[in-house]
Amino acid sequence: MTYNIDAIRADFPILSREVNGKPLVYLDNGASAQKPKVVIDAITQAYSHEYANVHRGLHYLSNLATDKYEAVRGKVAQFLGVPDENEIVFTSGTTEAFNLVSYGWGAHNLKAGDEIILSVMEHHANIVPWHFLRERLGVKLVWVDCDTNGDLDPQAVIDAMTPRTRMIAITHLSNVLGTVVDVKSICEAARARGIVTCVDGSQAAVHMPVNVADLGCDFYAITGHKLYGPSGSGAIYMKRARMDEMQPFMGGGDMIRDVHRDTITWNDPPMKFEAGTPGIVQQIGLGVALDYMMGVGMEAIAAHETSLRDYARTRLDGLNWLNVQGKSATKAAIFSFTLEGAAHAHDISTVLDKKGVAVRAGHHCAQPLMDHMGVPATCRASFAMYNTTDEVDALVDALELCHDLFA
Amino acid sequence: MTYNIDAIRADFPILSREVNGKPLVYLDNGASAQKPKVVIDAITQAYSHEYANVHRGLHYLSNLATDKYEAVRGKVAQFLGVPDENEIVFTSGTTEAFNLVSYGWGAHNLKAGDEIILSVMEHHANIVPWHFLRERLGVKLVWVDCDTNGDLDPQAVIDAMTPRTRMIAITHLSNVLGTVVDVKSICEAARARGIVTCVDGSQAAVHMPVNVADLGCDFYAITGHKLYGPSGSGAIYMKRARMDEMQPFMGGGDMIRDVHRDTITWNDPPMKFEAGTPGIVQQIGLGVALDYMMGVGMEAIAAHETSLRDYARTRLDGLNWLNVQGKSATKAAIFSFTLEGAAHAHDISTVLDKKGVAVRAGHHCAQPLMDHMGVPATCRASFAMYNTTDEVDALVDALELCHDLFA
Repeated sequence: MTYNIDAIRADFPILSREVNGKPLVYLDNGASAQKPKVVIDAITQAYSHEYANVHRGLHYLSNLATDKYEAVRGKVAQFLGVPDENEIVFTSGTTEAFNLVSYGWGAHNLKAGDEIILSVMEHHANIVPWHFLRERLGVKLVWVDCDTNGDLDPQAVIDAMTPRTRMIAITHLSNVLGTVVDVKSICEAARARGIVTCVDGSQAAVHMPVNVADLGCDFYAITGHKLYGPSGSGAIYMKRARMDEMQPFMGGGDMIRDVHRDTITWNDPPMKFEAGTPGIVQQIGLGVALDYMMGVGMEAIAAHETSLRDYARTRLDGLNWLNVQGKSATKAAIFSFTLEGAAHAHDISTVLDKKGVAVRAGHHCAQPLMDHMGVPATCRASFAMYNTTDEVDALVDALELCHDLFA
Repeated sequence: MTYNIDAIRADFPILSREVNGKPLVYLDNGASAQKPKVVIDAITQAYSHEYANVHRGLHYLSNLATDKYEAVRGKVAQFLGVPDENEIVFTSGTTEAFNLVSYGWGAHNLKAGDEIILSVMEHHANIVPWHFLRERLGVKLVWVDCDTNGDLDPQAVIDAMTPRTRMIAITHLSNVLGTVVDVKSICEAARARGIVTCVDGSQAAVHMPVNVADLGCDFYAITGHKLYGPSGSGAIYMKRARMDEMQPFMGGGDMIRDVHRDTITWNDPPMKFEAGTPGIVQQIGLGVALDYMMGVGMEAIAAHETSLRDYARTRLDGLNWLNVQGKSATKAAIFSFTLEGAAHAHDISTVLDKKGVAVRAGHHCAQPLMDHMGVPATCRASFAMYNTTDEVDALVDALELCHDLFA
């Protein structure tokens, strides 16, 4: 089956708009992806015809909304290759997911002197919750660097393991460099030493097939807004054995069994970790987005993006005045770059925007990596399933204009 | 200006649908309210034409989304009568809000033996976060009962204050009984004693004008999905002096200033308390919902619902076999009831549903109140700005059918 890029682009209403009088070239997918019409329509349908609060009702609309909402748990499990959907906990996104792990598992299972290994490529969402444990419990953060290509040697992570290592917090795919991390090898070594693994799938799940059972990690978080789903949606896989070691994170409705004046008991997982009225319609929309991706096929999406990566790499390598960070051979189609000495990343992005090309400029919530690379900020062009080689050309044309302006 | 109920009803698409072959009579607003078309359209518009991640971009769509998103902070401030919009923190709803207060303020400012006063009418969202502090810090929970009418004497709360009282967690309007609590008197007494007040506005803000500056509380939380806005939206007012005493709750993007390997510094409030990609489109939708309510007028909404309350009270009082809980003279249009000895609350709701009447059956996330009333569950009919006296009649007709079936 050929990849029908025209049909896919037609599914995303925003892609037909203009920005600053130019066709939108949206290359800010690493920050958040656009939404197909099926997702937008599902939201409209839910609010217009099928809305009520979930779980607590016995009337028709509440049962209907509950059925649609709960069905998403199975879709997430299918998407991530998780056999038991009760190991899927809904979240508002990856940030809430890692805070759930930090407060729910870390705060009750770690103590002063315990070590958490992180790669230098982690996003702040997979850093700050562990800094909390450093500040509050005296846990030690141990950092592992990537090499000059942006590759992370799994052996370097394994070599950093000590008898005090209790957890590894690691990204599956760098949001800045596009590096794909060999999480499976790291998890295998960690498992053999009784070390818990917490994997950030925010980017990987967008760009490649993910099978959590094969990876063998303890936690794997995804965020809906990067997966062509609504903002405020997400989920985390949590291994049952870890759930059993966890205390609740947020308290409120649904996560309790019984509340009295001086006693309280908790619901069973996954509900134990889901408090209050959830993002009902957002999660329903996430389910539609995952169905959409699985309908196109994750292998097909990955193949399309690999061809985009190869084309973009060749074209960007042709700009000998551009400093592209991240040279990993197996990287995803995410390109960070700077025009050292010529223009600040923010100036570049402003010029690109005038040409309709949306990229991000800044530290990309990855300041330790910026420190490691010795730059305060980069520009980042991050591609998605709907991008084209013509858009790579538009990016390169706009960069050449930048070079003319600033050089 | 007359209250144009027909025009208002026409604004809510779902109200024209049928359930079980009968016109929908939606009286489950206490659990979640339906959405006007302007809110649904705003969501569609955002995702179809104006979507990108907020705060971190410099391109057109990101700036547009950021402007729309950040404008909601001022709308919430206006809605709640808060002079400084930087005292408004966005949340995913009231549950996250109270967990923010518990983890961010309570865990860092309370110690064993300190007392938190709660009314017996609190929702689990305003109970469980304090149970956490009881379990984890040894804080003592002190409960104040309501009387047989469901009224809460503010003096009873004041009398419960001791030198160890550090906080009062109190609802502004009971989600089960409809009781309006004299929060202002309680806050005045608390302020004089240096006691922090945390008010649950989940229901009150839906049914009456709220002015936080006049109430004089430290925290006031609202939840978007009950305010005719999207699921997963919300906000909390936090007095600046309390913010200054707080540590961050969730860690991730936006809430940091600088992240390095062994050090971390926080952003200024309100951002310090908002981690990760937020519910961008949900908050934009919440702003539209608040504009919608303020456009109709909170005084007008309150007057309409007062007339509904009076009519419903008269009609329900005419059913001498129905046990209605909550007789407060100033209550909102929320009615809990049981058919003692004749039918379980769940059976009643099932029969009502067959007639198209959606009510909720259960403990309404208020088990301490259920214990206090000596019932395991109630049925609850909770009215909103779009309900009518004809719908009260439909409820009564359906209840009479219940009585015929079960008596």
